[in-house]
Amino acid sequence: MITTGFHALLLATADHGKIVLALFIVLVAAKLAAELFERIRQPAVVGEILAGILIGPSVLNLVQPTDVLDALAEIGVIFLLFTVGLETRPSDIFKVGRTATIVAVLGVVVPFLAGWGLLTLWPGHSWIEAVFMGAAMVATSVGITARVLSGMGLITAKASRVIIAAAVIDDVIGLLVLAVVSSLARGSINYLHIGLIAAVAIGFTLLVVLFGSRVVNRVKQPVKDLKIDHSLLIFALVLCFGLAAVASLIGIAGIVGAFLAGLALSEATDGTKLHQQSQTLTEFTTPFFLVTIGMKLNLSIFLSSGVVMLSAVVIVLAIVTKFIGCGLGAAGMGRKRAIQVGVGMIPRGEVGIVVAQIGVAMAAIGEQVYGVVLAMAVITTLAAPPFIKLAFAGERAAIQPEGYDAEFQDEIR
Amino acid sequence: MITTGFHALLLATADHGKIVLALFIVLVAAKLAAELFERIRQPAVVGEILAGILIGPSVLNLVQPTDVLDALAEIGVIFLLFTVGLETRPSDIFKVGRTATIVAVLGVVVPFLAGWGLLTLWPGHSWIEAVFMGAAMVATSVGITARVLSGMGLITAKASRVIIAAAVIDDVIGLLVLAVVSSLARGSINYLHIGLIAAVAIGFTLLVVLFGSRVVNRVKQPVKDLKIDHSLLIFALVLCFGLAAVASLIGIAGIVGAFLAGLALSEATDGTKLHQQSQTLTEFTTPFFLVTIGMKLNLSIFLSSGVVMLSAVVIVLAIVTKFIGCGLGAAGMGRKRAIQVGVGMIPRGEVGIVVAQIGVAMAAIGEQVYGVVLAMAVITTLAAPPFIKLAFAGERAAIQPEGYDAEFQDEIR
Repeated sequence: MITTGFHALLLATADHGKIVLALFIVLVAAKLAAELFERIRQPAVVGEILAGILIGPSVLNLVQPTDVLDALAEIGVIFLLFTVGLETRPSDIFKVGRTATIVAVLGVVVPFLAGWGLLTLWPGHSWIEAVFMGAAMVATSVGITARVLSGMGLITAKASRVIIAAAVIDDVIGLLVLAVVSSLARGSINYLHIGLIAAVAIGFTLLVVLFGSRVVNRVKQPVKDLKIDHSLLIFALVLCFGLAAVASLIGIAGIVGAFLAGLALSEATDGTKLHQQSQTLTEFTTPFFLVTIGMKLNLSIFLSSGVVMLSAVVIVLAIVTKFIGCGLGAAGMGRKRAIQVGVGMIPRGEVGIVVAQIGVAMAAIGEQVYGVVLAMAVITTLAAPPFIKLAFAGERAAIQPEGYDAEFQDEIR
Repeated sequence: MITTGFHALLLATADHGKIVLALFIVLVAAKLAAELFERIRQPAVVGEILAGILIGPSVLNLVQPTDVLDALAEIGVIFLLFTVGLETRPSDIFKVGRTATIVAVLGVVVPFLAGWGLLTLWPGHSWIEAVFMGAAMVATSVGITARVLSGMGLITAKASRVIIAAAVIDDVIGLLVLAVVSSLARGSINYLHIGLIAAVAIGFTLLVVLFGSRVVNRVKQPVKDLKIDHSLLIFALVLCFGLAAVASLIGIAGIVGAFLAGLALSEATDGTKLHQQSQTLTEFTTPFFLVTIGMKLNLSIFLSSGVVMLSAVVIVLAIVTKFIGCGLGAAGMGRKRAIQVGVGMIPRGEVGIVVAQIGVAMAAIGEQVYGVVLAMAVITTLAAPPFIKLAFAGERAAIQPEGYDAEFQDEIR
């Protein structure tokens, strides 16, 4: 007895109903998978990404990628890096700055050469495809590693700090590589333009790292004196999205801006509720980030045996070269920590995907290479967490800053 | 020196950058306006809606309504009603059940008759337009009132409980009115179909109100024993979006489901961090709800003097009839409280807009009436908060349940 009137009613409420239903499905699937993986002593992150593959278009097709889910995923990874920034002291970054720079540089050079070399030797690919392949293998996606380490209570360990600092530097270098590659695709290199990007990106990062804390300390009291409720939280959100927007506009990933915002706030907000509030926002939004990664993997490209073979080689190279490059960069920290840094830098995630999208937009790479890059991004992300858990096994969780996860969790229970 | 490569890079990151920038603009505009309004002792809610008009397409056009902002607005009002539910005891609802029912019924009948009568007498409108006008004036949007009252620390006052319970009942009645009206638009009334909707909607509401708390109490311990972090928060989010999705699917507004989820959790989660966590999520998302309301008001329809006149009359009628209908229903509570209930039920918000959208979809109403309904929804929403503040002035904020706003705020500062 579904009549026209009822049908119209359903249609009008369907838009909202559909979104709420999608959120519900994503949350349930992600958290059921996370619980299952925790019980079999595997990283919850892997479970949530696999849940995305399962409910996405490739398998059950319960939920499809939409603008709304993409936006929630973006908000999720922004809050994730913001929270990581909050738990990091700027002085911690300075202390590991030299090591992190070497890790970042070697972690860019070795994978680039490998990706470029592979497609130069592999039959059927142009030289420009080879260059884009190299560029896509460059940038580490630190969100996954950060999630695994903060789940283990190890986000403030020394190797963790090197990983996070190196990932920020790595992102800036990745941007320059992309600028060079894009210039090559057009047939010439514009040094002025590349120099300009480099100056803006490096300048922005240094500015926030060096002066962010001081500015926050100065405006802290006026912010607290505002009449609106939760004014410190509001200020933090504005800073987080503001710096993320600036980072996006000058071409660095938005998450770098969010991380820098958290870093600027970290010392001034010790002992406030901001750390718990930021974790709550992260807890709600991160599943959308993880599930969306899984949802975008198109399993059907693996029907071609040529693609499967190329993907397999690319994935192995992506893992091995990043591990070796970054591990060598951290060799001075001793073998155990060098290994921790090496595995922590493995996940590529969304940054490689953006490079591939630009390659497609410039008609520099074909659909197959695009599919291979996507598979590389998802599978390095899936493969890293077990290695990270293994490499960090036996490390004792550091004494947590006030208001941090473990204590918080105890109070809830 | 913007080259093609850089341009492609900007395009690829633009999607993400744009969303982050929009979030930033909405947050800054909403909270600057809120702070300004707090300082001139006006409701912050009004400031945030006006900020939406200002930054939206009608004035500065800094931000446009998109699927993403609509979704965040929907999530915002869902968290808002979820938090209201958390602060409400089911027994409080039972105690005011009889009064709330009378308030809801009179608050539906009087505005419906007024809207229908007006367009029957006003030249140039069909009888079916008159019927839709009446239906659009029926349903109270409780989000605004709830936000103002919780800002004043009065969400648990007796009149507040009547308003919230009446708004839930009102939504169910509004659904039935809409079903009748839609049947009329097709030329016949399908009693079986209307009875079916009524049974499902009433059954769902009663089921959750009567048994929700018991079920939550039973599963509470197993939930706490889960291995995932913040398991109680995750469970609450799943319940919130789950019941909101069910409510949407059976045709009641999703926010009713969210409110019922909060209600079911309220007693079992006393003394946990859930109440603060829920407020954090509300604090982040509510600005999108309020700004989106303002952003959707198209100021250009007021260029026609006929539309302005009709709008003015409809708005006055919408305010007066709801106030009189609901005030009469609450007459037994004494004059002061009857007035509080009357003004608290004035905002119409998004429910009237949905009715008008269905009318347009069925070709039952024209563009002008659609514009008038939109203006009515926004302006009743803007007009109510000052009256609410006035009517509740002198009430002492109740002793807050543990973890509630005021104490929370103190700890932050």
